[in-house]
Amino acid sequence: MSEYLQQFIKQHVPNIESHMYNLVKELRGPQVLKESMLYSLEAGGKRIRPLFVAAVCEMFKQPQNAMYTVGSAIEIIHTYSLMHDDLPCMDDDDMRRGKPTNHKVFGEALAVLAGDALNSMAFGLLATMPNVTSEQRLELVEMLSKYAGAEGMVGGQVLDMEGEKRQLNLAELENIHINKTGALLRFSIESGAVLCNATMEEREALVEYAHHIGLAFQIQDDILDIEGTSEQLGKTAGKDVESDKSTYPALLTLDGAKQKLAEHYDLAIAALDRLTVDSTLLREIAMYIVRRSN
Amino acid sequence: MSEYLQQFIKQHVPNIESHMYNLVKELRGPQVLKESMLYSLEAGGKRIRPLFVAAVCEMFKQPQNAMYTVGSAIEIIHTYSLMHDDLPCMDDDDMRRGKPTNHKVFGEALAVLAGDALNSMAFGLLATMPNVTSEQRLELVEMLSKYAGAEGMVGGQVLDMEGEKRQLNLAELENIHINKTGALLRFSIESGAVLCNATMEEREALVEYAHHIGLAFQIQDDILDIEGTSEQLGKTAGKDVESDKSTYPALLTLDGAKQKLAEHYDLAIAALDRLTVDSTLLREIAMYIVRRSN
Repeated sequence: MSEYLQQFIKQHVPNIESHMYNLVKELRGPQVLKESMLYSLEAGGKRIRPLFVAAVCEMFKQPQNAMYTVGSAIEIIHTYSLMHDDLPCMDDDDMRRGKPTNHKVFGEALAVLAGDALNSMAFGLLATMPNVTSEQRLELVEMLSKYAGAEGMVGGQVLDMEGEKRQLNLAELENIHINKTGALLRFSIESGAVLCNATMEEREALVEYAHHIGLAFQIQDDILDIEGTSEQLGKTAGKDVESDKSTYPALLTLDGAKQKLAEHYDLAIAALDRLTVDSTLLREIAMYIVRRSN
Repeated sequence: MSEYLQQFIKQHVPNIESHMYNLVKELRGPQVLKESMLYSLEAGGKRIRPLFVAAVCEMFKQPQNAMYTVGSAIEIIHTYSLMHDDLPCMDDDDMRRGKPTNHKVFGEALAVLAGDALNSMAFGLLATMPNVTSEQRLELVEMLSKYAGAEGMVGGQVLDMEGEKRQLNLAELENIHINKTGALLRFSIESGAVLCNATMEEREALVEYAHHIGLAFQIQDDILDIEGTSEQLGKTAGKDVESDKSTYPALLTLDGAKQKLAEHYDLAIAALDRLTVDSTLLREIAMYIVRRSN
């Protein structure tokens, strides 16, 4: 990872995290509910989604506090989806990021409810941001509702679940990822464009970047499941092969998957070439995503 | 029920329902997900929450299409909460309103995800309503986020769950109901005030009506659990007594609960007396709520 990107992450991640934790701590709700919500938010992760919002705002030289609120809303949605995903009736995972999953600590009922509370909370954050116009706030609420719900992330999770029952082709696999993980990544980048009043051309280029980088992210995930160690990943490696899951390497061979990864990376960078603003940060994040080892 | 109220229900419920079903049918998401969402929405119920929105709009002589969208958003949130409440890890109910519960038909995973999709969907509906100002839409998103989440409905569900472990006093019991069912009822009525640009005085009177009628609704529920038959209720009667649950009759005796019900009814009506507009509909709904047998 470049020095520049490291500095950028070091500058923003602590702010994003403290901003997000405070939003939950300030809620006037039952203590145990807030503890359950915070437990999963604090479990960490790369915070790649809020960092994308910050990167776009930095690119347009419009750093503003709203980017932390938008980033928090996205991370809150992402976190609730992981909490529900880990439930016994879904993936039945006991550990995530080296810590017991939410329902192992707080019980299943509270894991369901804390996820629900996070889901509802995210939209209120977007609706009440100061120093952002009404039109921008409404557009962000509309987008998050669409990208997080049946037409985006949740829809993708259902497609993924349905797909486990049979062999998928490449188009089907891609459609799952575009929705399951891609929709929220797209929101991360497009919401930055909304906050910065990007032109339609700029926004389209950014959405194209988001599309390809989202798929690249997923392909690298699939590759790491084969080439990484459990220690590196913080979760069991080799799980996909063992469960005979449809993945890029399974459909294309490992070399084919690496080829596909390179193609999406190139297309993501090509989309950035259409921008006149300095897109160094987004280029470096893209590089990091395809080269990461966890 | 009066002829007037019957006519009102007959006029609005079919519109509310078809409006709400169409919103889900129009989603571009996986078919099975939409079926699961629709299954629970179509399971019926009294539609009391959307009817409250319509009643307030009728009272201010501002009938508008937005009232069906707001009503749909509320009913969608209410429905997702029932789907998650019925899960084996929560109340573990196999039947609701005489039909198998969502997870009995679609499986637990899909019941969780369809609930999540409904939750996210509701906020997008409010953000995109035509013929409603940006400020009104933002205020409704903010209110729904607050009243449905940790500070409202979900918070109340957690308090209820925690409360099952011990004897509650009256203040604790009231606090559960104010949040668990009261918050969304309050939203039903207050959202109508927002749509109709009610004055602050009118809005305060309506919120007070909502507060008392919400508690009256819950007390009558508790009374019906004792005095009603399973056939009347469409669910097992006598469940509260059997499970030694904290209820109004358990804390106040049956006569004491009836007394409390009458008090809240009187206070709800007194709040309406402060309005200068014709509040016949809200009075008749209040009367229906305290006299209903299911």
